[in-house]
Amino acid sequence: MSFTIGEKIRVTVFGQSHADAVGVVIDGLPAGEEIDTDRINSFLKRRAGGQASYTTARKESDEPRILAGLSGGRLCGAPLTAVFENANKRPADYGNLRSIPRPSHADYTAFLKYNGKADMSGGGHFSARLTLPMCFAGAVMIQLLERRGIDIGAHILRIGEESDRSYDPVSNLPEKNAEGSVPVLDPEAGKRMTALMEKTASEGDSVGGIVECKVTGFPAGIGDPIYDSLESRISHGIFGIPAVKGIEFGIGFLAAQSLGSRINDSFVIREGKVLCETNNSGGIQGGISNGMPILFRTAFKPTPSIYKEQRSVDLETMKEVPLKIEGRHDSCIVPRAVPCVEAMCAIILYDELMKNG
Amino acid sequence: MSFTIGEKIRVTVFGQSHADAVGVVIDGLPAGEEIDTDRINSFLKRRAGGQASYTTARKESDEPRILAGLSGGRLCGAPLTAVFENANKRPADYGNLRSIPRPSHADYTAFLKYNGKADMSGGGHFSARLTLPMCFAGAVMIQLLERRGIDIGAHILRIGEESDRSYDPVSNLPEKNAEGSVPVLDPEAGKRMTALMEKTASEGDSVGGIVECKVTGFPAGIGDPIYDSLESRISHGIFGIPAVKGIEFGIGFLAAQSLGSRINDSFVIREGKVLCETNNSGGIQGGISNGMPILFRTAFKPTPSIYKEQRSVDLETMKEVPLKIEGRHDSCIVPRAVPCVEAMCAIILYDELMKNG
Amino acid sequence: MSFTIGEKIRVTVFGQSHADAVGVVIDGLPAGEEIDTDRINSFLKRRAGGQASYTTARKESDEPRILAGLSGGRLCGAPLTAVFENANKRPADYGNLRSIPRPSHADYTAFLKYNGKADMSGGGHFSARLTLPMCFAGAVMIQLLERRGIDIGAHILRIGEESDRSYDPVSNLPEKNAEGSVPVLDPEAGKRMTALMEKTASEGDSVGGIVECKVTGFPAGIGDPIYDSLESRISHGIFGIPAVKGIEFGIGFLAAQSLGSRINDSFVIREGKVLCETNNSGGIQGGISNGMPILFRTAFKPTPSIYKEQRSVDLETMKEVPLKIEGRHDSCIVPRAVPCVEAMCAIILYDELMKNG
Amino acid sequence: MSFTIGEKIRVTVFGQSHADAVGVVIDGLPAGEEIDTDRINSFLKRRAGGQASYTTARKESDEPRILAGLSGGRLCGAPLTAVFENANKRPADYGNLRSIPRPSHADYTAFLKYNGKADMSGGGHFSARLTLPMCFAGAVMIQLLERRGIDIGAHILRIGEESDRSYDPVSNLPEKNAEGSVPVLDPEAGKRMTALMEKTASEGDSVGGIVECKVTGFPAGIGDPIYDSLESRISHGIFGIPAVKGIEFGIGFLAAQSLGSRINDSFVIREGKVLCETNNSGGIQGGISNGMPILFRTAFKPTPSIYKEQRSVDLETMKEVPLKIEGRHDSCIVPRAVPCVEAMCAIILYDELMKNG
Repeated sequence: MSFTIGEKIRVTVFGQSHADAVGVVIDGLPAGEEIDTDRINSFLKRRAGGQASYTTARKESDEPRILAGLSGGRLCGAPLTAVFENANKRPADYGNLRSIPRPSHADYTAFLKYNGKADMSGGGHFSARLTLPMCFAGAVMIQLLERRGIDIGAHILRIGEESDRSYDPVSNLPEKNAEGSVPVLDPEAGKRMTALMEKTASEGDSVGGIVECKVTGFPAGIGDPIYDSLESRISHGIFGIPAVKGIEFGIGFLAAQSLGSRINDSFVIREGKVLCETNNSGGIQGGISNGMPILFRTAFKPTPSIYKEQRSVDLETMKEVPLKIEGRHDSCIVPRAVPCVEAMCAIILYDELMKNG
Repeated sequence: MSFTIGEKIRVTVFGQSHADAVGVVIDGLPAGEEIDTDRINSFLKRRAGGQASYTTARKESDEPRILAGLSGGRLCGAPLTAVFENANKRPADYGNLRSIPRPSHADYTAFLKYNGKADMSGGGHFSARLTLPMCFAGAVMIQLLERRGIDIGAHILRIGEESDRSYDPVSNLPEKNAEGSVPVLDPEAGKRMTALMEKTASEGDSVGGIVECKVTGFPAGIGDPIYDSLESRISHGIFGIPAVKGIEFGIGFLAAQSLGSRINDSFVIREGKVLCETNNSGGIQGGISNGMPILFRTAFKPTPSIYKEQRSVDLETMKEVPLKIEGRHDSCIVPRAVPCVEAMCAIILYDELMKNG
Repeated sequence: MSFTIGEKIRVTVFGQSHADAVGVVIDGLPAGEEIDTDRINSFLKRRAGGQASYTTARKESDEPRILAGLSGGRLCGAPLTAVFENANKRPADYGNLRSIPRPSHADYTAFLKYNGKADMSGGGHFSARLTLPMCFAGAVMIQLLERRGIDIGAHILRIGEESDRSYDPVSNLPEKNAEGSVPVLDPEAGKRMTALMEKTASEGDSVGGIVECKVTGFPAGIGDPIYDSLESRISHGIFGIPAVKGIEFGIGFLAAQSLGSRINDSFVIREGKVLCETNNSGGIQGGISNGMPILFRTAFKPTPSIYKEQRSVDLETMKEVPLKIEGRHDSCIVPRAVPCVEAMCAIILYDELMKNG
Repeated sequence: MSFTIGEKIRVTVFGQSHADAVGVVIDGLPAGEEIDTDRINSFLKRRAGGQASYTTARKESDEPRILAGLSGGRLCGAPLTAVFENANKRPADYGNLRSIPRPSHADYTAFLKYNGKADMSGGGHFSARLTLPMCFAGAVMIQLLERRGIDIGAHILRIGEESDRSYDPVSNLPEKNAEGSVPVLDPEAGKRMTALMEKTASEGDSVGGIVECKVTGFPAGIGDPIYDSLESRISHGIFGIPAVKGIEFGIGFLAAQSLGSRINDSFVIREGKVLCETNNSGGIQGGISNGMPILFRTAFKPTPSIYKEQRSVDLETMKEVPLKIEGRHDSCIVPRAVPCVEAMCAIILYDELMKNG
């Protein structure tokens, strides 16, 4: 279902970039759990991006109004529903995009799917603004997961040619959350990335990157074989985030170049518990968690909205035309994608826990 | 749903490696379409693997018995149901695996999920034998897609350090199917891969690889935004194939190192039609097909069953023990994975076409 | 899914009786269709009930605010989302209900399911107020169905011992909508029902009834055999309306007393078309529409909220206690249930049309 | 999904009346549970019908072959799969039905839905033979429910004008299963029903009836509000049984004629537990079980296949023609419907228990 994800916990998002609002309905959450709205707001601030030159100048009220589902600060069994008003609309900026699709954006495919009737102002319902209600849902799940000893961390592993160090794949202690507007493990890498993003922004260009995500404390034995493997479900969700081009678990694509004798994860006994000595499997075997950290990496393409002139076509005249995009947009969405990856990961894993736990 | 995939066309597989049978039920197919069972059998032979040293010596009857759903060679509206008897059972070989899980296999996670009650003989319902009914379903969909001018091809892009050339991402003509027991575009690459697999087999080891898949003729405008993007659905299916560790669409992970100005796919008019000059998007934008070839790559890990001694634990005594796996197994499953990728791709795309077409 | 219904068109409702709002998200509607909001509001007024003594004195703003999904008065492909503020909250009235469940209401089962954490003020998310967003969704579908020549009518067939005449089961012309606050076919029956409801209200009691629904113009060949029969899907939806105790199609329960030779619907040719001479099947055979009017009846129990003293228990002290319910409530919800039945019928049938049409 | 029912436990049936086989795949059952196949066979014998004049002379092997999902007599986590060969095919009898649809049967709607391509021999995939795999699934669930203290009983409440007494709605002790080929509570009623069915058979006619079903021991607090109420889910399943025309819960349609003060179920304390003094709600309030017996009644129409000449049309010539049905068929399917109702009830309730328990 296009705007709904989840089996036992169902997250439905709605809204367009320049409609009255975006929002989310979360059905199936357990009654009685306390929800800390301050922590939700802090999480949403991480997604909002900062004041940097490489981040959109569009400033929105990202404060949710909770319409239903809470009673006295606790979940009450009714779907938790939150709405974010779209205060800062500027549809005029996007007027010229209607008939001239932006390369590598959803304009052209939306035109085809909706027979030219989609409201594509600001990206319409394909806009990254739809990640706001998604992050709200994720922020809720993160609280619920934490109460069960499960922590989710993500950081920027790469932007362009600049890279951070990787997570320790074996340690099952919570990762200290990568902080700041450029969340990395190595502050020096963050500085290099910042410089690269600023340079890219100044050139009117955009740049891609990789987000690495690690989940600690997730119990073993959760997941399903075959068509509902944990990898199937996580990847399904992650590709729901705009601009994702790839995902890999554990050793990922490097497995293609490896020998079994090198990358098989030997079982060992540590303090009376079965563990793996290495974690090339990324915490999942046969589609089911094995008690090691769950580890995956997500590739983001450069945002397609760039200031440089591009080649496109006019769908009305069916002629090739140059296109220069105005308006506000990020030149690198990877920093803001970090909490999005955490949020979607939390949505899927909490659902799995409720479904199979 | 663990053993079912699809929304409008639902494919349900069943069976264990050493049960009486494996099989498949396909619900929702359009009545009246002719089904060529010879072509299905040819497709299944591609999955069976050949006589090579790197392929399992287990020989099965891979001939389906169609129980229902056909009438006079045509689909009749009832679920198409096929069964494959498991003639060649050798459960004894696997006896010692019960309490000593094979590293990087599903033994340990199955033990946890099913409280030690799973029938893991031969890999149980985690066995790659379950890809046989999946390939049956895919072979059916491939026929139905071809009648609409849609062709699916896949080839081995890489095994270990040996690589084939890539598909032309832009040409929308059907790829000639990569033939033979090592399906590649460049025969020289095939020879090098064969040599590598034979060497790996002789060392009792295993090796991974990458399968590249290309779909031509798929109409533009099919798919959904957000949580049912084509990438979401394809990746969900592909991770249902055993041993998959990663997937990427179009330019994939390379997008992380790229600038928007370099990889945005410019729109052009060719013979009165809107096309993209490049295809870094892999034929999908905003989760919806754009009329260019759909292109993705899937990473397979080395099969975890190797003959070399490995380290494991005995789940009964909770002691570390060495493990030497006997029995029959492939040292490289990548050649046999090629039709599996085609099959799963066909299952998802035909479903999308029926759902959104 | 508890708060979502539909396969191709998914209707998700949210809210509690005394939360900030109730509302609805409708995903999957076809872009480009015009939506007449005035007609939606007229439909919602039918559900609101009038000024009668037997209708609750609670007066709400039943005007929807459409947050997203429309652009220039047309559906734009994004989920159509509407919110109804709960202006007129009076939670204090319901304070004493928390630990003393009202007989035959959801209080006790909600207490069990949600471990006492549900917000049951005003009936919480079990409240008939949730039929407001449902009616909004139905009002949208009714417009879309009408454009395809499909009309849905419903009327009160019975309240207590007073009954209206039945629809003509064979005529496939649209029924003139039963008008007024007591929608019946025979105005005399309406007067008798009104008198009965007023008498019941004056005695502090409540009374049940039957709503009959008829769909004309629905195309033949829509529906599915076995587990997704039209009857399965319609009944699934109808039992989502509070207070429903039974449903029957065509001749319904009377079939149990009938001979096949009497009630089989003979096929005839009329003006070159295949029709049935009678319509004891209610327009559905083998789970699939046959082109005759779809006809079903729904039994509603008396609303459980009555002013008379009743026997209940205190869940805290576990003692039997008398209960006297204060507050505002209908003594007969059947008149207001008429548009609810039409709405749910429209939701299911439009979904079936999109799914199978 | 047309041939699949269930959320956490998914039951998929397949086959046609005169195909090679019918069968069932059950996914999601808990590993480790013992399955008594003798008891399954006994249950299936109840559905087979006896030697009576009113039961079809078609004799089938109703013995299942279990293909997968069991290991050492216990569920192993793989989908439980059973096949029933269709040994006794007699397609010739049905040859003349192809273009002349039987009144009130699925012939005509199947013709429309499948463009004349359905294999309607013997009723095709609309045949009551599909209730055989359904009963297999139900027989499995009944065993699993019994281990949790939940019993399901059903009996014939009515055939034509002959009626049995009703179940005691309040007693929560397991009902002794109504035995024999005409399962009733009152043997005298059974004799009268037998006489009626024999008379009807001798006249070449058919007659309908009502099956009453009662579930004891079902825990309170299971189910969901709104669109997944227990009534929604049970009715959805029950209408998947051929020939069902209506369903009612608890007091059912009689509620329409009742006052709230008369039928509200007062809460009382009995041996320290909250119970209802009456059970007009049928064990369900707000869509959720309340701990009282679950009670519902299902109306079956007379089987449409009768020997008497009927009026139909020839779909090829589009002319009205008389129709005389040959072949074998029941003149009253109600006795054989009793285990079908139990089976479907078990499928839904076990699924609910796994989903919400």
